[in-house]
Amino acid sequence: MIPARITVATLGAHDMPAMRGFYRGLGWREKDGSSDGFASFLLEGAILALFPFEHLAADGHVEAPARTTGFRGTTLAINVESREEVDAVIAELRALGARITKEPEDAVWGGRSSYFSDPEGNLWEVVWAPHTSFDEHGRFVW
Amino acid sequence: MIPARITVATLGAHDMPAMRGFYRGLGWREKDGSSDGFASFLLEGAILALFPFEHLAADGHVEAPARTTGFRGTTLAINVESREEVDAVIAELRALGARITKEPEDAVWGGRSSYFSDPEGNLWEVVWAPHTSFDEHGRFVW
Repeated sequence: MIPARITVATLGAHDMPAMRGFYRGLGWREKDGSSDGFASFLLEGAILALFPFEHLAADGHVEAPARTTGFRGTTLAINVESREEVDAVIAELRALGARITKEPEDAVWGGRSSYFSDPEGNLWEVVWAPHTSFDEHGRFVW
Repeated sequence: MIPARITVATLGAHDMPAMRGFYRGLGWREKDGSSDGFASFLLEGAILALFPFEHLAADGHVEAPARTTGFRGTTLAINVESREEVDAVIAELRALGARITKEPEDAVWGGRSSYFSDPEGNLWEVVWAPHTSFDEHGRFVW
């Protein structure tokens, strides 16, 4: 059986100090022992890790392309617990200097969605979806 | 406060039927209502979602590059509970036709690591790390 779980999402970083600074600036707790060589943040759901871009490709035994900019094809999401919280979180992100690529807007499927980008173009959705609930750790309950 | 959580990892897919088929083939449970327009899998930790590549970029209000191949700069991980389980899971993935980019090997940091790729080059690490423990849902305990 292939364990049905995501434990870590790792972003290949071109500028580790800048990327660490950005995520620390969100108030997220970095794990002890994090460095500019490898950093991880203790999020609920899955760990967020940062690892130099070329090293991450090498770790997976694949070729690293030339430096990427813009959309990478993968997004991460932060579900929040109310429609209003989407707007509040985006306002806070803006105040922290994050680039908001999509202002909060109601979605055709009934929720509310917005996106921000980290300094290297990794996209995060801040989203509220109706009929979802969370446990005490902020994780989905099926 | 920016909620410190990852609820969903979404992969932009060029061929939705092929990508859905691959992840269903792992034995992962697709959420009711999934389609070739949007599919999600109920993993522990975070949901895995599949959404057409150009639609995902458009949803985030960013430009979609030309079709990407190879390393995208983001990886996801499946932590398992023993050194031996890394090898067992990789053997099962190989039997299912997944491309193994890195055979299991002991890592300098004391764990055991391997990688496989989905049909569009998204990399997953199957990894065991010493001194980590999980709750009954297969999620990290800090």
